[in-house]
Amino acid sequence: MVVGCIPEWVDNRILLCRRAIEPRYGLWTLPAGFMENGETVQQGAARETLEEAQARVAVGALYSMFNLPHIDQVYLLFRARLLDLDFGPGSESLEVALFDPAEIPWDALAFPVIAESLRLFLADRGSGGVGLRSGTIVRTQGEQMRYRIELHESSAAW
Amino acid sequence: MVVGCIPEWVDNRILLCRRAIEPRYGLWTLPAGFMENGETVQQGAARETLEEAQARVAVGALYSMFNLPHIDQVYLLFRARLLDLDFGPGSESLEVALFDPAEIPWDALAFPVIAESLRLFLADRGSGGVGLRSGTIVRTQGEQMRYRIELHESSAAW
Repeated sequence: MVVGCIPEWVDNRILLCRRAIEPRYGLWTLPAGFMENGETVQQGAARETLEEAQARVAVGALYSMFNLPHIDQVYLLFRARLLDLDFGPGSESLEVALFDPAEIPWDALAFPVIAESLRLFLADRGSGGVGLRSGTIVRTQGEQMRYRIELHESSAAW
Repeated sequence: MVVGCIPEWVDNRILLCRRAIEPRYGLWTLPAGFMENGETVQQGAARETLEEAQARVAVGALYSMFNLPHIDQVYLLFRARLLDLDFGPGSESLEVALFDPAEIPWDALAFPVIAESLRLFLADRGSGGVGLRSGTIVRTQGEQMRYRIELHESSAAW
């Protein structure tokens, strides 16, 4: 289980980290990582944010739950309020920065699950309805590293 | 990660299984079990329901997410529509039955996380607002097998 968050500052900018580790060295991602024993999913999301971005957050509602069955992972990303601007790269990050929605580096995001969650989140926040999103990232055969995204019914619609 | 569901029949009755295995042999529970590799959380919930209750369901929205940090588990329970009445005990169940909300065997439920999820679900369904519930089951010190339940903010409230 991978837990992480979408840290928002009060001006709606979103905090991203540029990876200092493989895979996808040098690409941007949301703070997220493997859950550890003895912690809650919310504590794990906050811990990963502190480790990767030296940032303190108040973790809110679960925003997205994506299955990645080809690598036996489930991604849980939470909404989170950044508590101050006192952040900086942890040991697994080259750089940490706040991005306006219009400035998100879409072509330099590390993982399909991150790109899809961010895309949905910005659309949902723009329209005012931010409920849980759920889906599956399916690795497609044939070409290398191509994916199909299957969104499940929204939770509001049962 | 433990995945399961709250199977509902069209008359609002809920399917429960009486455990044929330890722990909590002979007590009632919702169909749920450990997620396996290569499946989605929704597929895992449907598989467990088929294995424990020989029942086919359409898995819907995530209803509850509970942390059980004292045993390093996260419980994900989904809403589910029972597709027919062709169910029966699987090898891990003594008995499988549909219960009216007024007939739930509260004193013979197997786990706090199941009792709390059912209690919340029946209250939410009764009031018409069934969003995601999230919380933590905290084992309290001192007395044996006592728990405190901490509910998190509802997802609707950010």
